[in-house]
Amino acid sequence: MIKAGIVGGTGYTGVELLRLLAQHPEVAVTAITSRKEAGMKVWEMFPSLRGRLDLAFSTPDEAPLKDCDVVFFATPNGVAMQQTRELLDAGVKVIDLAADFRIQDIGVWSKWYGMEHACPDLVAEAVYGLPEINRGQVKGARLIANPGCYPTAVQLGFLPLIEAGAIDTNFLVADCKSGVSGAGRKAEVHTLFPESSDNFKAYAVPGHRHQPEIRQGLARMAGHDVNLTFVPHLTPLIRGIHATLYARLTKEVDLQALYENRYANEYFVDVLPAKGHPETRSVRASNLCRIAVHRPQGGDTVVVLSVIDNLVKGAAGQAVQNMNILFGFAENLGLTQIPVSP
Amino acid sequence: MIKAGIVGGTGYTGVELLRLLAQHPEVAVTAITSRKEAGMKVWEMFPSLRGRLDLAFSTPDEAPLKDCDVVFFATPNGVAMQQTRELLDAGVKVIDLAADFRIQDIGVWSKWYGMEHACPDLVAEAVYGLPEINRGQVKGARLIANPGCYPTAVQLGFLPLIEAGAIDTNFLVADCKSGVSGAGRKAEVHTLFPESSDNFKAYAVPGHRHQPEIRQGLARMAGHDVNLTFVPHLTPLIRGIHATLYARLTKEVDLQALYENRYANEYFVDVLPAKGHPETRSVRASNLCRIAVHRPQGGDTVVVLSVIDNLVKGAAGQAVQNMNILFGFAENLGLTQIPVSP
Amino acid sequence: MIKAGIVGGTGYTGVELLRLLAQHPEVAVTAITSRKEAGMKVWEMFPSLRGRLDLAFSTPDEAPLKDCDVVFFATPNGVAMQQTRELLDAGVKVIDLAADFRIQDIGVWSKWYGMEHACPDLVAEAVYGLPEINRGQVKGARLIANPGCYPTAVQLGFLPLIEAGAIDTNFLVADCKSGVSGAGRKAEVHTLFPESSDNFKAYAVPGHRHQPEIRQGLARMAGHDVNLTFVPHLTPLIRGIHATLYARLTKEVDLQALYENRYANEYFVDVLPAKGHPETRSVRASNLCRIAVHRPQGGDTVVVLSVIDNLVKGAAGQAVQNMNILFGFAENLGLTQIPVSP
Amino acid sequence: MIKAGIVGGTGYTGVELLRLLAQHPEVAVTAITSRKEAGMKVWEMFPSLRGRLDLAFSTPDEAPLKDCDVVFFATPNGVAMQQTRELLDAGVKVIDLAADFRIQDIGVWSKWYGMEHACPDLVAEAVYGLPEINRGQVKGARLIANPGCYPTAVQLGFLPLIEAGAIDTNFLVADCKSGVSGAGRKAEVHTLFPESSDNFKAYAVPGHRHQPEIRQGLARMAGHDVNLTFVPHLTPLIRGIHATLYARLTKEVDLQALYENRYANEYFVDVLPAKGHPETRSVRASNLCRIAVHRPQGGDTVVVLSVIDNLVKGAAGQAVQNMNILFGFAENLGLTQIPVSP
Repeated sequence: MIKAGIVGGTGYTGVELLRLLAQHPEVAVTAITSRKEAGMKVWEMFPSLRGRLDLAFSTPDEAPLKDCDVVFFATPNGVAMQQTRELLDAGVKVIDLAADFRIQDIGVWSKWYGMEHACPDLVAEAVYGLPEINRGQVKGARLIANPGCYPTAVQLGFLPLIEAGAIDTNFLVADCKSGVSGAGRKAEVHTLFPESSDNFKAYAVPGHRHQPEIRQGLARMAGHDVNLTFVPHLTPLIRGIHATLYARLTKEVDLQALYENRYANEYFVDVLPAKGHPETRSVRASNLCRIAVHRPQGGDTVVVLSVIDNLVKGAAGQAVQNMNILFGFAENLGLTQIPVSP
Repeated sequence: MIKAGIVGGTGYTGVELLRLLAQHPEVAVTAITSRKEAGMKVWEMFPSLRGRLDLAFSTPDEAPLKDCDVVFFATPNGVAMQQTRELLDAGVKVIDLAADFRIQDIGVWSKWYGMEHACPDLVAEAVYGLPEINRGQVKGARLIANPGCYPTAVQLGFLPLIEAGAIDTNFLVADCKSGVSGAGRKAEVHTLFPESSDNFKAYAVPGHRHQPEIRQGLARMAGHDVNLTFVPHLTPLIRGIHATLYARLTKEVDLQALYENRYANEYFVDVLPAKGHPETRSVRASNLCRIAVHRPQGGDTVVVLSVIDNLVKGAAGQAVQNMNILFGFAENLGLTQIPVSP
Repeated sequence: MIKAGIVGGTGYTGVELLRLLAQHPEVAVTAITSRKEAGMKVWEMFPSLRGRLDLAFSTPDEAPLKDCDVVFFATPNGVAMQQTRELLDAGVKVIDLAADFRIQDIGVWSKWYGMEHACPDLVAEAVYGLPEINRGQVKGARLIANPGCYPTAVQLGFLPLIEAGAIDTNFLVADCKSGVSGAGRKAEVHTLFPESSDNFKAYAVPGHRHQPEIRQGLARMAGHDVNLTFVPHLTPLIRGIHATLYARLTKEVDLQALYENRYANEYFVDVLPAKGHPETRSVRASNLCRIAVHRPQGGDTVVVLSVIDNLVKGAAGQAVQNMNILFGFAENLGLTQIPVSP
Repeated sequence: MIKAGIVGGTGYTGVELLRLLAQHPEVAVTAITSRKEAGMKVWEMFPSLRGRLDLAFSTPDEAPLKDCDVVFFATPNGVAMQQTRELLDAGVKVIDLAADFRIQDIGVWSKWYGMEHACPDLVAEAVYGLPEINRGQVKGARLIANPGCYPTAVQLGFLPLIEAGAIDTNFLVADCKSGVSGAGRKAEVHTLFPESSDNFKAYAVPGHRHQPEIRQGLARMAGHDVNLTFVPHLTPLIRGIHATLYARLTKEVDLQALYENRYANEYFVDVLPAKGHPETRSVRASNLCRIAVHRPQGGDTVVVLSVIDNLVKGAAGQAVQNMNILFGFAENLGLTQIPVSP
C-alpha cells in the first residue's frame, strides 16, 4: 500500500485520478490540495465520489505531501515546476499531468507556454511517460512527464509506421477531435453547453501547444525531425479523442501485421481487425487505445484511426499506469475497468 | 464461481449485464443466446467488450442454459414466461429483467401487456426483486422478477413516506424523466439521434405499463390501494432516470431523518444532505440510487428527487444484486464501481 | 420603420433579439450597448450574424437610445429599473426582458431579487406582457414587463383551467424542464458542456424566483391566491422548456374543447389534438407555444403539457410580439418562422 | 407563383424542403408523395409544420406531379432515374437530391451505387447543381443533379486553390465530419441516440460514394484527374458538416485574397477573416457556407476549413437555390434566414 497525494484536484483530471485511485488496491490517497477549496469535502464538489472518499481539500502548505510515496500534479502549466524539486528531495516520486516536463528543448517550451522554465535540469531528468515507448526508462525514474491527450493518441497511432520507416515524414497530417472535457473544468463561455453542444469547430489551427510535443515524439521515433500538420477540433463529446492520421507510404508493408505485431504485448493498445473503425465510446472510462489502419482503395496514402478517452489514457489513467510501473505493480492494476457503453 | 447464462443479450440491458458479470469475481458467463446473431462474437456487436469476453452468441437450443446456476432473461416481454419452467425444473435460478413476473394480478398484466400469461402459477411464486424492500424473500427464491427502471426510482423515493403513513396516498404524482437507452436498442425512428437529441417530450401520458407496477408496489407498502399519476418523459441522456415525486403531507415528520434512518444500512441508496439535488451523472454506470427530500417553503407538499442509472440499478445492476443475494455473496460484490463523471 | 435599441446585447436573449429584429420588416436596430465590449462588431461575438448586421457594441453613454422608438433591456436584473424613467421621459417605449417590473408586490420582489427597487411607481405602471392574457393593456402601455420563460409556459398551460374554475387551486404542481440556454451566457462551471451534457437534475427546489411570478399570474386569473409547487430542472437541450402541470379537477369539463376554444384565435398558441404530446423541437426557434391536455385513465387529475422555446416565446420572441402590439403592427410580423426540426 | 411537387417527402431532406418552400414567396407546394404514408397529413409526421402546411401525403400515382412546374426528388438513390423522363416530357423541371444524375461516368456510378442506370442519356444532359461553379449551365437546364452534402463542402473549400493551380493535386486530403441527420431518417441501430451520442467515429474509410463525386468535381476544376483521400466521420450533431482540407502548396499565393476574391460576389459563401475558425452552428438552418484558409506556421501545407448545414446548403437549400435560378427568381429568394444560434 502506497500513499498518494494530488496537487490541484478540482479539475477533470483530478476527479478522474480520484476515481481510479480510490478503486486501486495498492493506493491510499492521503492528501489532495486546493488553495481555493481548502476545507471542503471532495464529494461536495464531486458528488460521484460520495461515500467512497472522505477526504477534504487542504492547502498546499498543510497537506502531508512529503509523506507521500507519489505525488500527482493535476495543476495548470507552470505549477509543478515550482514544487517538484522539494518533493524529489524528500524522496517522493512525482508524476506531472501538466506540460512542465514534456518538452526537452527549453526554448521551444518557453515559446509555446509563455514563461521561463524554473528548473531546466529537471526537464533533462524527467522521463516522458508513454510506457508503450518508454517503459524501461519509466521504471527507474523519479519524475514522470505524463503525455498530453492528443500526443498520446497521435504517437501511438504513428509509432509502428515510423519505426518501420514506411512513410514520408515530410508530410504528416494529424486531424484530431476532442471531447469538451479536454478544455478543462474552467468557467469559460466557449465551452458552455449552449456553445459547444450541436456544434463542431477546429481551433488553434495557426498553432497548438501539443504540436511541438507530438513532433518531438515522432522525431525520436524517426531519428530525425519530421514535418507535422496538427489540427485539433472540438466535438460535442464529454470524453474521447479520435485522431485521424494521414501519411504517404514510401515502401510496401503489411500494415495490419505491422500494427498487430508492434502492439501484441501491449495490454492497453488494441489493434482492430482490418477495415475496422474504432469508436470513442468503445474506450470510454477505460485506459485503452484502439487503433485501426487503412489503405483506402489501395493507394499510397495510409490512414490510421486512433481513439482514447482523453481523461484516462490521455491523462489520469496513463498517470496511474506510470505509477504502477514506478512501484513495481502489475502495469494494469486498478486499470482493468471495462469501457462503459452505451 | 457460478455459471451464468443470458437469454437475449443483444440489447442495452444485455451488454450492461455482460459488463458487470465479466468483472464479477464469482461469475463465469457460459452462454449468451441470440437466435438472430448466433455465431457472432459478442465483441463484434459490442466493441467495448473486445479483449474481455471471448464468447459468441448461440441459438437458444444450443446454449447450455440448463447447466447454468443462474439464467438472466434480457428479452422482450413474453419470452421468459415460455422458458422459465423448464429451467426451474432443471434447478436453475431465473432472474427475469423483463416484465413477465412483475405484476401479481394476471388480468391487469394481460391488459397492459396485450397477451395471455403462459404460467400464472409462476407469477405467484416469483419474488419482486427490489432488495431494499424484499431482501428476505429474495434470499430463498427460485425466480426473481427484476423491477422496471421507473418503478425502482419511484418506489425507493416514496418508500419512507408511505411506510411512515405521512402522505395522502390519494394524490401521488410521479413525474419521471428517462434517458434514451431506456427505450432499448431497437431500430426505430423516434429514438434516432436527430429525433431525440436537443428534444424533450412526455410520452404515454394516457397510460404506461410501469404505472400498474409502481401502483402495486406502493399499495403493498401502504397496505391499501393508492392513486398515482405517472408521467414519463424522454430526455436527451444516454443513461439516467430522474424521478420527481409530489405528495401532500398528512402529518408532521422530520423528513430528512425519516429518509436517513430508513436507508442507513442500504449500500446502494444514498440520502443526500438536506436541500440537496441529486444529478443523474452522480450515479452514472453505478448501482446507486441517490435521493433528496424537500418541503418547499415549508408548505404541505413534499418533493422527493430520486435518481438511478436506468441500465444499472434500473436493470442489470439490480439483477446482479439479486443474484448476489440468491447465492449468498456479499450484496455489493462486483457492484462497487465508482460512478463515471464527467 | 421604427428604430430599436438593445441594452445589454451580449447574452442569449440579446443575440436572439438581434436575429429576430434583423429580419423584421419594420425595424432598424440602431444601437446595442455593452460597456465591456464597446467597439466590437456584433458579428465578432455572434458569427451567425455575420453579413446581416453591421452594428458594433457601444457604451450606454454613447448609444443613441433616446432617439429610439423602443428600447429592449436584455440585462441582468436590476439594470432596467435604473435607466427606464429617463427613456420613458424621452418618449421611448421600454420592454424589459429581465424581472425588474414583473412583480407588483415590491416587498415580494425585494425578497426574491435581493435588492431595493429603484422605482416602485413604474412597477405599478408596467404592463405584464403576456399578450394572450393582457393584449388590451399592452396596446396602450409605455413600459412592458416581458414575462419569464417558465412563467410563460406555465401560465399559458394553466390559463383555461383556472379561468373555467375547473381545478383545485390549493394544490397545483408545475414540474418544469429547461434547456441550458435558460441559464444565460455566463462563464460558470455548472453549465459547462461536460457538466450539463448527459446529465439531468432539479435545482432550486427550496425556492426559485419564477415561483412568485407564476403565482401572481395564476392568482390574477383565479381572482384569489393559489398554492403552487414549482420545480425547475436542467435538461441537456440548448433551447426549450417543457412544463408538465398537474391539478385536481373539481368539476366536469370537456378539457379538449376548453383549450381549443380558449386559444382558437391565438396565432402563437397551438392546442394539439387529444392524446397529443408536444415536443420541444416542434417549437424550436419559433414563437409558438404548443399545448396538450390529458386526463389519464379518466381519473380526477388533469395533466397539461406545454412547450415553448425559452429564447423566443420565453424571451425575445414575446418581446417582439409585445413590440408589434405597441406599434400597431400585425402581431406576428417578423415572427412567422417555421420551427427548425430536426 | 410556381407549383412544386416533392417525391418522397418523409425524410430529413423532405421536411427541410417543406420548411423552406412553405416560406418561399413564389412557390406553392401542391403535391408530396409517399406510398407508405398516403393519406396522412404531413404535420402528423412533422409536427413542426403544424398550422403551416395543410397538405397530406399522396401516392405517386395520385399526385398531380405533371401539373407541377418543378418536382424535387428526395428519394433513395435509384428512384428518380425511373420517373424523371416522364416528367421532363411533360415539361416539368426536375431537381434530384439523390445521386442518380451526379456522376457522368456511368460505369463508376454503377460500381458505387450497385445498380444499372436506367437512363444514361439523361445523366449526360443533367447539370451538376453547384451554382457557385455552374450557375450559367443551371440557368437553362431541365434536370439538375443536386450535389451531395460532403461534396458541396469539399468542392467549395478546394475550388479557389485548384482554379489557381496552387496545390499539388496528387495528394489531397478531405477529413470530413457530419452530423447524424446526414444518415437519414431511417430506423437503424447505429444512429440511435444511445449509439451516436457522446461518440465519435470514422466510417467507410475503405470507400464512400461521395469520393468519386468529389473527385469528378475537383478534376473538372483542375482540368485533369486528382488524387483524393476522403474520410467521413460521424459526430454527435443534429446538423452540420465540417470539412478540414489539406494540400501542399506548389506556388506562392496570397491565400486570403484568393478566397475573398473568388467568393466576393457569392451571397451564400462567406470567407472569414484570416485566422478564423468557422463553427457549424454559425450556419445552422441557413444556406450559407463559411470558409477559412490557413497556412500553419508558414509551412507548405494549406488547411481549409469549410462548414455547411448538411440539410440546407448540403441538400434542400441548395435545391431551392437551383430552383430560384431555373425560374429566374433572385437566387436567395426564400433563403435569407439568419442562422439559429445558439
